[in-house]
Amino acid sequence: MIDIATRKERLSIISAILTNHPNHLYPLSYFSDLLGSAKSTLSEDISIIKETLKKYGQGEIEVLMGAGGGVRYLPFISDAEKRQVMKEILMKMQMPSRILPGGYVYTADIFYNPYYIDKFSRILWSFFSRANPDFIITAEAKGIPLAMGVAKLFDRPLVVVRKENKVTEGSVVTINYISGSSKRIQTMSLAKRAVSEGQKTIIIDDFIAGGGTVRAIFEMMKEFSITVLGCGAAISTRQPERKRIENYKSLMILEEVNEELQKLVVTSNI
Amino acid sequence: MIDIATRKERLSIISAILTNHPNHLYPLSYFSDLLGSAKSTLSEDISIIKETLKKYGQGEIEVLMGAGGGVRYLPFISDAEKRQVMKEILMKMQMPSRILPGGYVYTADIFYNPYYIDKFSRILWSFFSRANPDFIITAEAKGIPLAMGVAKLFDRPLVVVRKENKVTEGSVVTINYISGSSKRIQTMSLAKRAVSEGQKTIIIDDFIAGGGTVRAIFEMMKEFSITVLGCGAAISTRQPERKRIENYKSLMILEEVNEELQKLVVTSNI
Repeated sequence: MIDIATRKERLSIISAILTNHPNHLYPLSYFSDLLGSAKSTLSEDISIIKETLKKYGQGEIEVLMGAGGGVRYLPFISDAEKRQVMKEILMKMQMPSRILPGGYVYTADIFYNPYYIDKFSRILWSFFSRANPDFIITAEAKGIPLAMGVAKLFDRPLVVVRKENKVTEGSVVTINYISGSSKRIQTMSLAKRAVSEGQKTIIIDDFIAGGGTVRAIFEMMKEFSITVLGCGAAISTRQPERKRIENYKSLMILEEVNEELQKLVVTSNI
Repeated sequence: MIDIATRKERLSIISAILTNHPNHLYPLSYFSDLLGSAKSTLSEDISIIKETLKKYGQGEIEVLMGAGGGVRYLPFISDAEKRQVMKEILMKMQMPSRILPGGYVYTADIFYNPYYIDKFSRILWSFFSRANPDFIITAEAKGIPLAMGVAKLFDRPLVVVRKENKVTEGSVVTINYISGSSKRIQTMSLAKRAVSEGQKTIIIDDFIAGGGTVRAIFEMMKEFSITVLGCGAAISTRQPERKRIENYKSLMILEEVNEELQKLVVTSNI
């Protein structure tokens, strides 16, 4: 009886810990210390959890052998869930009440909603799941939750480029750039201590229109000799076709905003 | 054999789903649909998970009976973990290299790190765990990850007050306020569509010095006839003792920053 109860406990607790900390490599000794079980027993538990998560489309478990090895959770989202989420979000995104004067689209309710951020982050992460960035980077402010969500899935920190220079950042590198949408010259700054030469990063933003902001982050990374492994956004616009950056992934395309006809068309891009 | 295998699967999957979506009420029918099990069987599984999480200090499970009932995960952090996290973070916070010219303190590496944000959010949430806010509110930008973390734990959206008025927000209410630290007049705006009269909220920010920003959010909420249930921050300063707001919870107190002596003192406040 005691043995069965213990397996039940182990399955509950290991499953919770692994899935709550995606991509974090737990050595088996972490669980043997916590649960007082032999590593062979834990390996069996982990096989059961791995099969179960896979069966129910809740992500994958990866076991790395040898010294420095361990077990980690890969937060893949199933195709079925992806389709369902995209359907739901496209319906929400296309509500004509989002259209603002000037043809802008209100999206704060989506980009500050933990539920959508969680789903978007998982899908964006899955595009780059084989990459190994040292950090994720974005520009303040509306992209922060999404970029933070992706950073969490990579088990890496987020770095945020500021749109104005604050004294609370210390020494910064500042660059000027042309905003894609407003065509105005803008300033962007990044604290020198936030990153190190030779690191690798992925740029994440909520919205790519002209691509000016993302391009500016890209240029900023060059200043710091940092490699950009990829670039992802929740939404990109159909127009202009030619953006200031070339290779990026986006989950949705904003096809059309017609203020007069109160028509808003957004399509899936995955 | 099949029965035992199924219980193992159920424990793994229910534990993962509940703990990954704190405070979200899942009706038992959600799990019976997903797993094909009788509700009486699922109730037993949930009891096992509840006991296990409690035993290992990984939070609590609450079962609400009757129509509209269900099961949800309450993301409490154990006292032992809280102590360990605070010890770790205070050591990190007090590194003299954080001191910037003018006596400012660099904290971006902490407030954009998913690991610390997760821990801070859990502790802050636990202060308000009995409250039932409709949304969490903060001001851009550095408080966004922490406020988003707390919002996620409440299973509620985040609302972000902007420090400048953007055209992509539609109609806004704007107020002017005096920033506590810089003593300058600043402007803050909130989209009218972001909130509704009669709602309840909790204000979350990374840092409270003079209390000007938080006070301004409080005044903004009055304009919208919204009740503020509480206010929480990661760090508050010892000086000035008298701040522009009175009731707030903070996890740490910044006691002293001495640029000349390169001395930085931060204490726990929980």
